[in-house]
Amino acid sequence: MSTLVLCSGGLDSVTLAYKVHAEGNLSYLLSFDYGQRHKKELNFAEKASSALGVPHEIIDISNLTKILGSSALTDSTPVPDGHYAEQSMMTTVVPNRNPIMLTIAFALAARENLQTVAAAVHAGDHFIYPDCRPEFVDAFKEMQLLALDGVSKIDLYAPFVGSSKADIVSVGSELDVPFQETWSCYKGLERHCGRCGTCVERLEAFHLAGIDDPTSYDDTEFWKTA
Amino acid sequence: MSTLVLCSGGLDSVTLAYKVHAEGNLSYLLSFDYGQRHKKELNFAEKASSALGVPHEIIDISNLTKILGSSALTDSTPVPDGHYAEQSMMTTVVPNRNPIMLTIAFALAARENLQTVAAAVHAGDHFIYPDCRPEFVDAFKEMQLLALDGVSKIDLYAPFVGSSKADIVSVGSELDVPFQETWSCYKGLERHCGRCGTCVERLEAFHLAGIDDPTSYDDTEFWKTA
Repeated sequence: MSTLVLCSGGLDSVTLAYKVHAEGNLSYLLSFDYGQRHKKELNFAEKASSALGVPHEIIDISNLTKILGSSALTDSTPVPDGHYAEQSMMTTVVPNRNPIMLTIAFALAARENLQTVAAAVHAGDHFIYPDCRPEFVDAFKEMQLLALDGVSKIDLYAPFVGSSKADIVSVGSELDVPFQETWSCYKGLERHCGRCGTCVERLEAFHLAGIDDPTSYDDTEFWKTA
Repeated sequence: MSTLVLCSGGLDSVTLAYKVHAEGNLSYLLSFDYGQRHKKELNFAEKASSALGVPHEIIDISNLTKILGSSALTDSTPVPDGHYAEQSMMTTVVPNRNPIMLTIAFALAARENLQTVAAAVHAGDHFIYPDCRPEFVDAFKEMQLLALDGVSKIDLYAPFVGSSKADIVSVGSELDVPFQETWSCYKGLERHCGRCGTCVERLEAFHLAGIDDPTSYDDTEFWKTA
């Protein structure tokens, strides 16, 4: 089942790429440049594609995100510190981001005659991102089957939809994912800041999984009280 | 019900804009520049927005269509003459075009706090475009309700999904749509060519509806035998 993996260069999607590769199905990595403050993540997606020996395409949708609204990920709003929680993290939401990226991914999969699109949506994101929930995944799959009926039959593979980020760290550890070559921090400095929502979540996930965290952080204590 | 209408400047979507306006719900027109051979259609969308007194946004997705595959609408493949029919017209299909444009439209509607996105998909397109069928419309609506749950509740309005193009001409005639200020022809010359699939369909629709066609064509006879 030839598979295109949506890979941002973050921990979840790089682990997904390694998992699909281990399952013998990896054909393609796709990243989006949506006008991120920094491109560090994209470099790590590129590294994963080289390590796994598959083509990597970066599609620039920054003009879309500029039009579609401001977000702490793309504009000058300060990145909130602290644990992922609805109030502070709503500023990191670009509305309808997953449906837009997935419809483009399905078009690319159709062009490449691939059978599956894989996305690293996971249970930890359900609370704040409705487009990461299992009901959404099922509805999206059904919509695409009808939209491409007679053209391509492409499935959506979201094996982490019921998993916590700690579960993903465990899977990645078994697959020898080079975690130090994945990027989570929203701030894009030299090292992970250790304080933003996604750093706190990352630190917590390694802790809960009982796996040594090879990441270099500026602050390794903040997450314990966030 | 504040509504964003996807409006290419063609006969169907301009008629839809007039219909939504007559229903008291028109708030916004959205067009896509997807690298069309010509921009004549977009000028007519702009005219409709001025006539109806609503804002008009054109979102450039030409880099996407360039990446996602070639099509007679966007590249140098010759535009086929003749009646809309599966074989010749498959060259006018950009894969997954409607899902991509609709997910972007829903994001814009979310940004603008609008309640509805309206699209002029119609029964005449079912045969060749799976993403114009009623099953697709229903599945897309459901997907978006889940994707934006807790963020926005936006409906998809597709009143022509069961209508022929002749039905749309009848609706437009009752609403006094200035049909001469809509553009269908794929070729984008001075006048409508009268020979390409969409010109043939347009000529036939006026004939079937029994409505005088104010369009100026280079060839007014070809469609009768196409």
